[in-house]
Amino acid sequence: MSLAPWRSSLARALHRNRSLPYARYVQLATVQATGRPANRTVVFRGTLADANQLKFITDIRSQKADEIERSPWGEVCWYFPNTREQFRFAGRLTLVGEMHADSALQAARASTWQELSDAARSQFTWADPGQPRVSDDGFNAPLPDAIAPLPNFCLLLLDPDRVDHLELRGNPQNRRIYEHKNGDWSSQEVNP
Amino acid sequence: MSLAPWRSSLARALHRNRSLPYARYVQLATVQATGRPANRTVVFRGTLADANQLKFITDIRSQKADEIERSPWGEVCWYFPNTREQFRFAGRLTLVGEMHADSALQAARASTWQELSDAARSQFTWADPGQPRVSDDGFNAPLPDAIAPLPNFCLLLLDPDRVDHLELRGNPQNRRIYEHKNGDWSSQEVNP
Repeated sequence: MSLAPWRSSLARALHRNRSLPYARYVQLATVQATGRPANRTVVFRGTLADANQLKFITDIRSQKADEIERSPWGEVCWYFPNTREQFRFAGRLTLVGEMHADSALQAARASTWQELSDAARSQFTWADPGQPRVSDDGFNAPLPDAIAPLPNFCLLLLDPDRVDHLELRGNPQNRRIYEHKNGDWSSQEVNP
Repeated sequence: MSLAPWRSSLARALHRNRSLPYARYVQLATVQATGRPANRTVVFRGTLADANQLKFITDIRSQKADEIERSPWGEVCWYFPNTREQFRFAGRLTLVGEMHADSALQAARASTWQELSDAARSQFTWADPGQPRVSDDGFNAPLPDAIAPLPNFCLLLLDPDRVDHLELRGNPQNRRIYEHKNGDWSSQEVNP
């Protein structure tokens, strides 16, 4: 596997925005069963080893897991404040849950769990997300094991086939679209 | 028209994040003709007078204008870095273009144009967005009139029927969902 041509631009943006923890927060759009879009903030967890896929995590009980099982298409919008640039990553999402058959992805799921903070891991012990909040009792479980992921923990992968990179700095702005077709990446400069 | 119950929370978030210009940048998800989602950053331009609608702008030549004409549903995801809170606004989008029949919305379109900076207005003179960039000649037009909007300028309104407000601060986090049904807003606290 070779690095996709957008990887160096993304690495540069991450480096230049490293002073802002929330520069790793991105917005993931999916499509609901009703045909309406959904959109929420998720945390970028790095790229999958030897692949051009972006890593995120989610809870199998969340609404987005349902949406992705039904329609695997997603678009991540990622704005970097320090450098005033935006990446849009469009492609197929893969949920890697407890029963996923691929052993390499299971290993990636476990290592992603192990790299989380205690606070992030403990969220997977919380009461059902999105259900009416009846008490605070559902938020006091002991810390989960730091090695073996809880059954409801999912690794979430985005395998982009289109990346739209817009730099607001510059006069006019610069915009480049990368596309993955027949196993190859190509790119084209377009009007902003 | 009465103010929706989420308006005070949004006003407070805007105030507490006013030191960050990009706290007014939000991500708008729509659905493409292919059924895949699209997601991009847009700038919040305030609320429509006497309404609980969020104002944005767009170019009628943009891909999102096509998408909205085909499927008017959108979801805005808005993350506020200073206060560590997220709002998700789901609802119907309305494009107010040059030919829109409603005179009050035409007046709002004109006033929104007049409030833009010269730099923002000049983007509407640029060459077709998303088309291959052949030269820089398409970006040198004289500044457009500051009073009368260019024909391709659209006001874009989001009329939410569901607002999901998540506060990451707090142990555990706090999350409240507002819904608009039969002309009334109700709200419920839910598990984060």
